[in-house]
Amino acid sequence: MDLYYGKAEGNNIVLDEDESHHLIKVKRNRTGDSVFVTDGLGNLFTTNFISVDKRNCILGIRETKFTNKRSPHLHIAIAPTKNIDRIEWFLEKATEAGIDEVSFLQCRHSERKDIKTDRLNRVLISAMKQSLKTILPKLNPIMDFNNFVSGNYQGNKIICTMSAGKNENLKNNYQGGKNLIALIGPEGDFHVDELSVAIQKDFIPISLSSSRLRTETAAMTICTLFNFVNSF
Amino acid sequence: MDLYYGKAEGNNIVLDEDESHHLIKVKRNRTGDSVFVTDGLGNLFTTNFISVDKRNCILGIRETKFTNKRSPHLHIAIAPTKNIDRIEWFLEKATEAGIDEVSFLQCRHSERKDIKTDRLNRVLISAMKQSLKTILPKLNPIMDFNNFVSGNYQGNKIICTMSAGKNENLKNNYQGGKNLIALIGPEGDFHVDELSVAIQKDFIPISLSSSRLRTETAAMTICTLFNFVNSF
Repeated sequence: MDLYYGKAEGNNIVLDEDESHHLIKVKRNRTGDSVFVTDGLGNLFTTNFISVDKRNCILGIRETKFTNKRSPHLHIAIAPTKNIDRIEWFLEKATEAGIDEVSFLQCRHSERKDIKTDRLNRVLISAMKQSLKTILPKLNPIMDFNNFVSGNYQGNKIICTMSAGKNENLKNNYQGGKNLIALIGPEGDFHVDELSVAIQKDFIPISLSSSRLRTETAAMTICTLFNFVNSF
Repeated sequence: MDLYYGKAEGNNIVLDEDESHHLIKVKRNRTGDSVFVTDGLGNLFTTNFISVDKRNCILGIRETKFTNKRSPHLHIAIAPTKNIDRIEWFLEKATEAGIDEVSFLQCRHSERKDIKTDRLNRVLISAMKQSLKTILPKLNPIMDFNNFVSGNYQGNKIICTMSAGKNENLKNNYQGGKNLIALIGPEGDFHVDELSVAIQKDFIPISLSSSRLRTETAAMTICTLFNFVNSF
């Protein structure tokens, strides 16, 4: 089964140029074929061709199946890595395994201060389609660390750091059933001042492993464990 | 801290051309500097220069620290993906997070029938150095699925498959403390005959997620959960 991404407009779906090209030129679908489309908002549409155009395909909605958002909710806030491929990798894998929201943090030790959310959103869309999901994880723009931790969040709040003790682990601090907000620092970890600001804002320091994990591996570890503990 | 890879010969370490080049030309280390080297067998050597040569550096061992192998032991047997980058990615991440042994399976649905163990071993060495570990995971050559499952293994044996029921999960079938041997199938999952052979050989079918996971993501999920359950 192939899944396409497009927005519903009334009873129709209009595919953009990339998606139309893939459908018509790569997969060679034609009038009469059923095409599965998601809007990333939980809807899975079964559609038929209305207008075949390699730039702008129009499909008619025959059936709609809706999936609710997951609960509890996993929100990972991560400092972007110098090599952006590593973040893209994380977004791909996390979408596949299950994640709800991703934010980016500007930290003192960050080597990268900006991100291209458009490009990263395309990575998420591609991973959603590949793993046959119908909900696109929410992607937030980059934010200063201090502003981010001052926000209001419902659920358990943790900050992953190599400076946490061996017993300050996820096992002892997250038993599932509640939303989780996890902060993942840059190469070189969080600055000690950032750590103390986060603790003041009720983030609990957590050690993920006795090994030194890269930024994106730490984020993916949180994701896998959250899904395991919540039986997703 | 930088870690190099080399073999001990008596009281000396001889670095190969790549490692020598990195030490002398990239990192510009010189006589007098301390250099940390591992042999991948558990030894961390603190050394000093004996002979500076960009092709063949010789170092004198000043101190040796030995780390025992982990217990319990994680052995993942995986069908190599068509795109070998995905296996390389898995080896890098698994080494970082912690894994002990990797085998490759030739399955009915395998799109790739051979692997270059030399190249994959270099990926392991690089990941071991990067994550400052001193034990190199064991890498076995590719083996026919039926031969592999007929082997003798100490510990829990599982086969990860999309055909397992929701309750046939890791939570119910692995509580830690014992070795784990996990089979991960190719794109398109194991053939039904392979599944029944494995079950005859006491492998338990396990579902890892309600999502469709790629081969390498499934393998990494096992790795993360094994380390979590065993508090590594």
